[in-house]
Parts: sequence; structure tokens; C-alpha cells
Amino acid sequence: MTEKAYAIGLDFGSESARGVLLDLKTGQIAHRAMHAYRHGIMSERLPDGSRLGPAWALQCASDYVEAAQILLEALGSGRQIIGIGIDFTASSPLPARLDGTPLSDLHPERPHAYVKLWKHRAAQFHADAINARGGDFLRDCGGRVSAEWLLPKAAQLAAEDPDLWDMTERFIEAGDWLVWQLTGQEGRSLSFATFKAQYHEGEGYPVHVVPGLADRLAPPLPIGQAVGGLTAAWRQRTGLRGPCLVAAAVIDSHVVMPAVGATRPGTLVGALGTSAAFLLLDREPRPLPHGIEGMAKDGMLPGFFAYESGMAAFGDTLAWFVRHFPKGGSTADAFIAHGEAAAALPPGGSGLVALDWWAGCRVPHADSRLSGLLLGLTLQTGPAEIYRALMEALAFGARTIRDALQDGGVPVGRIVLTSGLAGRNPFLMQLMADVLAAPVHVPDLVEATALAAAIHGAVAGGVVEDFAAAADRFGATRFATYEPNEAASSVYGDLFAHYRTLSGDSSLRAIMHSLAPG
Amino acid sequence: MTEKAYAIGLDFGSESARGVLLDLKTGQIAHRAMHAYRHGIMSERLPDGSRLGPAWALQCASDYVEAAQILLEALGSGRQIIGIGIDFTASSPLPARLDGTPLSDLHPERPHAYVKLWKHRAAQFHADAINARGGDFLRDCGGRVSAEWLLPKAAQLAAEDPDLWDMTERFIEAGDWLVWQLTGQEGRSLSFATFKAQYHEGEGYPVHVVPGLADRLAPPLPIGQAVGGLTAAWRQRTGLRGPCLVAAAVIDSHVVMPAVGATRPGTLVGALGTSAAFLLLDREPRPLPHGIEGMAKDGMLPGFFAYESGMAAFGDTLAWFVRHFPKGGSTADAFIAHGEAAAALPPGGSGLVALDWWAGCRVPHADSRLSGLLLGLTLQTGPAEIYRALMEALAFGARTIRDALQDGGVPVGRIVLTSGLAGRNPFLMQLMADVLAAPVHVPDLVEATALAAAIHGAVAGGVVEDFAAAADRFGATRFATYEPNEAASSVYGDLFAHYRTLSGDSSLRAIMHSLAPG
Repeated sequence: MTEKAYAIGLDFGSESARGVLLDLKTGQIAHRAMHAYRHGIMSERLPDGSRLGPAWALQCASDYVEAAQILLEALGSGRQIIGIGIDFTASSPLPARLDGTPLSDLHPERPHAYVKLWKHRAAQFHADAINARGGDFLRDCGGRVSAEWLLPKAAQLAAEDPDLWDMTERFIEAGDWLVWQLTGQEGRSLSFATFKAQYHEGEGYPVHVVPGLADRLAPPLPIGQAVGGLTAAWRQRTGLRGPCLVAAAVIDSHVVMPAVGATRPGTLVGALGTSAAFLLLDREPRPLPHGIEGMAKDGMLPGFFAYESGMAAFGDTLAWFVRHFPKGGSTADAFIAHGEAAAALPPGGSGLVALDWWAGCRVPHADSRLSGLLLGLTLQTGPAEIYRALMEALAFGARTIRDALQDGGVPVGRIVLTSGLAGRNPFLMQLMADVLAAPVHVPDLVEATALAAAIHGAVAGGVVEDFAAAADRFGATRFATYEPNEAASSVYGDLFAHYRTLSGDSSLRAIMHSLAPG
Repeated sequence: MTEKAYAIGLDFGSESARGVLLDLKTGQIAHRAMHAYRHGIMSERLPDGSRLGPAWALQCASDYVEAAQILLEALGSGRQIIGIGIDFTASSPLPARLDGTPLSDLHPERPHAYVKLWKHRAAQFHADAINARGGDFLRDCGGRVSAEWLLPKAAQLAAEDPDLWDMTERFIEAGDWLVWQLTGQEGRSLSFATFKAQYHEGEGYPVHVVPGLADRLAPPLPIGQAVGGLTAAWRQRTGLRGPCLVAAAVIDSHVVMPAVGATRPGTLVGALGTSAAFLLLDREPRPLPHGIEGMAKDGMLPGFFAYESGMAAFGDTLAWFVRHFPKGGSTADAFIAHGEAAAALPPGGSGLVALDWWAGCRVPHADSRLSGLLLGLTLQTGPAEIYRALMEALAFGARTIRDALQDGGVPVGRIVLTSGLAGRNPFLMQLMADVLAAPVHVPDLVEATALAAAIHGAVAGGVVEDFAAAADRFGATRFATYEPNEAASSVYGDLFAHYRTLSGDSSLRAIMHSLAPG
């Protein structure tokens, strides 16, 4: 009997990291673990207590190392580990020395020495400046960088702490940096480079945007490639055995594709979390469809053009509702009770139509200063009506993205929606199918993201030939399918026309701008 | 020592009647009483259990007689009563015989035999037909009758139960009918005739609108005139003594003018109840200002042109909020807690702007199918923000009316806001002053409406020469004055511009129409 072999997947989120141990023989998850970061998100103060400015959000690189050690040991100690895959929030870059030392180890008193978490938005000024100057490198991201991405964050660091920028020998995504720590080799990933730093094949990074940037970035590796094996020091610390090949890291919202079988063009994957990501592969290069946020060759899985898009708030919007309309003893009780009341109304029976822009609008306006709208309120309107209208608006947001892709000529076939939320809320999934007027498939997966990271580890470890083979062997096998109801789809078609009218009303958007803080 | 003398005021609302005993020497209210109608509002079934159609709302005339007897006895038994004034909901007409017998006494099985309460809206078809035909008699009500008024209600009766219409010898407002019962004399009031039946001096009622209407209406009497003394039978039943002169009845939402000192042109009175009425006297005849709902010569107080306007929901909107965002043990607790939280925000600090059309929009659109809107919602929005935005929107609704009057050339000077709500909610009153950018005066009155009815009784009884003298002697003497805060007014000026943009956005109104039920 041969020894059991495993892959490990590590999913580094905003507040904590989760890991799974994937049994490569059975294809089942053998073990799961979670660890919350020691310092969490620092948005008010540094560890020494000094104050941060508005819209800052930092993390400590050492927290990732601690989490990786705890999770790897918990999941793999004494076990034969073929590969390790890592997904990470992005863009979450940090400044480091050439040997990988994060500058926060050397200058813990300087805010710019820390990881700027994806939601650090204090670089908005620099994003605006980059966008105002423009350039061909913006062609695959709709002509603009987000303040959340690497270029504005580098520009902010260079402008606000030039001494520290001088000491910065590498400006690197935290995911890539962690892989460097684990393997001793700096292996940047095309995932971050393309979608978060506007890297293009042949052209490289747009290094002219920030003086000195060229020296501080390394060329990226293909997704699924092994950067190297776990170092001896890490093996000792964690007890892992075997090849322990660590894959190039990937963006957490993109990693899921092989876990849900979306390794070929045409499957639109919606990862529905607090926000929502919508991902799609294509065979051909095309102009970026209007309203879609980003496209990258080889940026999601090797060999494909990948589109990414999303909704700024998804589960967050439903959580907002339940927070302000509590019912029963717990949040779960409230979701169930409100869900049943909303489901008792007929399609479009709320008398309301909403714009789902509670955290701004990504598609089609790419405008974080837009806000939500409820129209049709009467003295008869109750929580059930509002909850239903919010769910309908979220589905309209998803349809806006699907339609933008289709209208832009990108073939959309099967629709897969994934996440805990998708598994827990069959009413919302049926509503999505009705609004999209297309079947919706929800994989039966518990820890899709970390499983997907483990699949990247398996590919990097050579367990399977490619991601398609990995998806067949380790991805979801069971899906719940929601078929659209024709009568409901027809009602929602009319309501969606109202949603589009509201979305397109520039005077509403002007009022939202003037109401937005700051 | 001369015997004490009193006037009685009876206020007939939708659910109950209230009465006060006014001491004519001290000017103080000596006694108060309330009685709820035996049958309340019949919107589902007749007393015999038979079903009513949608949008019906009936009352039993006998309930008014019962309430009048109980209140008159409770307030005045054994006392010297100089005059009795009555205010009543309108238009609430009933069919009667020439001797005053209501047809519901003779045909209790026929829905059309009962009082059609003001909120009976099943005559909408007939209102639409009258408005489509048009006519010069519509010039002082913006070119249209409301389904709540007398002409559509008569048309519905004539069309749907022609036999009963044949038996109808008088079609009369319930307020006028009650005066007839009390005095034995049919005394119609200019208050109802002008505002609710489009009576014009010289032209009379537009009787051509409903065949046979001419025979069923009697000419109206001036407001403040005594119709007659209480009959011997009523004196015996109630124990009242003295002249007991009963004044011509008046519309409940109009009666308040002399109680708050608004007996001369230029004082805009807002009576803020579940809905809100805005009333203003003028010396000159003018074209009806755009958006204002009605004007009538001598229709509110003798000798003046009177404008009426209003908001379909006022207190109802705040009650809606508190019903769906409960806090603390009681509704009162919730109002206080939410009020404090809303007041802690700066002017315009909610990040929201609302349209206050929870029960449709009276000014400027005269459209009951419009609905409410909330714009600016974010994940940070909480109940305090929503509550504040609703109060701001109500103030913007009031400003819309004030501005329409001013823009139409009607002089607006002092602003008086009255009701229990006005007395209880100093924060909302300050907000009204800030939004109106004008001082707001709130009279210190507990039962302003019934007191005003008693003043009408005092005028009819000849206790005072006219309403101005009555206001000086019996009206409010103390007012709380809210001065506008200049900085807040400036912020609200900007927000009000957004409110006007939203109100004027015809594509929003088209969506509201399509969402409206029915």
C-alpha cells in the first residue's frame, strides 16, 4: 500500500487565513483549519499606537507568516505533501529588501512600511492622476486603474515617504511575498501582475507611471507553475514531508475556477461573497466589453483570455438589511424569517425597484461614489417587500454584468454561482435564474476557495497534467440546478428595464455624487 | 353673579368624534370628551355582513347622531350653551329623503345608501370621466376633481344604483346632515360646497355633471352663520340650555384657522396630522397657483379667498418608519430614541435624500399613484439616517407648497404649524424652520380642532362680532417660535434642489406608475 499523498490549499482573506488538506487519491478534503491574523486590519492605528489617516488599511506581513506556519503544521505535519497552492487578497503590496525582509521589520514606526491591504483607498488621488494622464496600458481595464491596485499604491508610497521608497528594493504583492518566504525564491504571479499591476505580455509593467518602479518589480510566472519547494527551515517548523512544491499565488477572488469546473471558455462563474466577483474565460482576444472591468491574457488560467467583473456589495447588502430589520433571536433566524416572507410575494410583487449600489457601482459605472436607491415606497411597504427588492436588485446587478459580456461579444454559456451564500439561499438562486432567464448551477462545495488553492498546488506538483484534468479529478461533481421560470422571467424583464432606466439616469448619479461623503 | 356661558365644539373625524366645552368668559377649555363611532369605517363589509368592493369606505349616519348625543350631554348637560360649532371630514356625502331620513335607514342592504367617507375612492372612474369632459367649473381646483369629492361620489351612486338615486331627495355632506338633525333645518355650508362640490358664487353647483343633481343639492350658507337652534327633542335628550345656536358645519382640516389666529390674509397654516393640510387666506382673487389644489371665495372664512393644499402622508410616514424600525418598548419610546439619533446628525448629514410620497403626491403632481423614494443608501446608512431623511423630505414637501403659493403671487407671511405632532416634536419644527428659511410658530394648544369648532359656535351665537375678534378672545395666545438657522438653511437649500430634481424627473414618475398596484 503506497503512502497517502496530499495537496494543501491556503486561502488568505482580509481577516484570516483558511486551509484545506486535499487527499489526492480520494479527491476529498481530509482536514480544514482557520487562523485569524494577529493584527487584523489596521485602519486606525499602527501597532505602536500612532494614528493613520482616513481610508488607510494596513496589515503586518509577519501575520501571514504566523498564519502559514500554524495552518501548514495543523494540516500537513508528518504528511506527504506534493504541492501547496496559495490564494491571496489583492492588490495588497508591501515594500521589501532584496532578501525579502519587509520594511515594516526595519521601520515599524512608518505607515508606508506595511502591507497596503486591497481596501486601502488612500491612494485615490494617485489613481486619479494616473487615469488623468492615461495611456495604452489602460486598454484592458476600461481606461482606468482603481485606487485599490498596485500602481496608485506605489505612487502614494513614493510621493509620501520618498526615503522609504529609496529603501524599497522590491514592491511586491503579499501573496507573492509569502511564496518567496516559503520557497526562498521570488516568484511573482501573472494573476497579480496582469489584473492588479497592468502587466502585458511583450510590454511588461507600465513602469513609467511611478519613478523607480522598474527596479522594484520582478517578471511574473505563469499560473499553476511551481515557484520552488518548501525550504528546509519551513519543513522543520511545520513537519511537512514530500516535494512540497509551492505554486505561484493567485488572486483570492479568481482562484475558484477549477474547483467549480470552469477551466474552459464560456462558463460564467459568480463567486458571491460579501461582494461578488464574476469571472469568464475566452479563447480570443477582444476589445474589453463596455462596463466590464478587466481582461488579461493568461491572467486566470494559462492559455485563456480572462474577464473579471463584480459587484461592490452582495452579501453585505443582505447583511445590512438584516442588521437593521432584526427578527427572531439571531442573524440566521432573521435571514430565514425575512426570506420566507419575501418568497411569499410574487415576482415583482414588492412594488419596489432598487439600485443595488450600497457600496458604489462597479458595472457599468465603475464609480464608488454612487449609492443605493429604493423607489416605490408606500405606507403598505414592509420589510418583506424591501428584502425582496434588494435580492431582485442584486440579481439585476448580476444580469447587468452577464449582458455586458454578451453584448461585448464574449460567449457566455453555463452560469455557475458559488459560495456559502449560494448554497444556503435557494430562493435567491431561483431568483437569479429567473432574472438571468438561464439555468443557474450551484456546486455542492463547502470550502471552494481553499479547495481551489489546493488544486493549484496539485497542478504545480505535477499530480495532474493541467487545470482541466485537475477540475475533473478534484473539482465539484454535484451541482444544484435552478431552471428559470418563464412567467417570472417575463415579469423581471419589465422590472429590469426600470433598473436600467434608473442606472442610466445621469441626474440621479449627479445627486448621489453630491451626497457622497468627502 | 351672572351664569357661566359656554360654546361647544364638536370635531367629527374618521374614527371618532371629539368635543370641547369652551368657557366664554375665561376663554379656557372647561371639559373635553371623545367617542368612537359604533361601526367605525366600513371598508370590507356592510353591517349585515355583505361584502364591499375594493376602495370602498362607508360610515353609518346613525353613528354621528349617537356620538353627538353622547358628547353634547357629557359636555353641556345643564349648562347655558350659546353656540355649537361642528367640523366634519369631507367630502363624506349621504343620500337622504326630504325630511332628512338617511336612505341607509330605509335600505340598509344597499351599499350606496350609506355615507361615502372621504377616503372612499371607488368613484375614481367617475372622477376621471368628469375630468376628461372638463369645464370652467374646474378652474379653481387645478382642472380636476378628486375621487374623494362629492361630484364623483354622486356620479357613482347615480350610475351604479339608479333606483336608489331616484329615491335620493337630498345628497348631502354628513356634516351638513348632522346640523340638519340638530336644528331641524337643512343648512348647507359654503365650506363643503366650494371646496368639495365646486360651487361658485353666481354660478352655483356644476349640476350638469350628474343628471338630477340639481334637485338634490340646496344652496349653501356663509361660514359662521347660525343654521338654527337645537331642537326641543335634542335639548331634552342632552340637557343643554340656552340659545344653542348651531353654526354651519365646516371641513375638519379647515376649521382650525381662528384657533391659531389665522383670520387675516398672509398666515400660512399647516395642520400636521396623519396627513397635512396647508391653508392660506388672501384678499384678492388670483388664478390658482400652479400645483396648489383648490381656491374658494368665502370657503374658509367669510370675506376672503382661501387656498387649500396638502400632503397625502405626514405623520403617517413617520409612523410607518417607527412601525418598521421599532426601538424600546413602545411607539413613543421609538419616536424619542430615533428622534434623538436623527437629531445628532448634522443638517443634510444623512447622506440621503427622499421623496415623501409614501401615499402619493398632492403637490405639485396631484397623483395618488406616485410613491416614495430613498436615494443615497450605503452600508453605513442606519435608521437614524433614514428617519432624518424622511423628516427632511416632509419639510421639503411643505416648502414645495409654500413656494408654489409664493410663486403664484399669493403673499405668504407668518407660518403657523399646528397639531399634537407639532407640539411634541421640536426637532421637526426646527427642521421645518430651517428648510422653509422662515420662522415657524407653533401654538400652545391641546385640542386645536375642536376648540376651533367651538369658536365657530361662539361666532354663530353672536358672542363676538366676527372671526378675528373670536381669534383674539379664544384663540391661541402662546406660540413657540422656531427661528431658522442660516447655516442649516443653506445646506437644505442644496438638498431641496435635489428634491426638486427628483420630483421633476418624469422617468421616475413613469416607473412609479408602472409599479403602482391596480
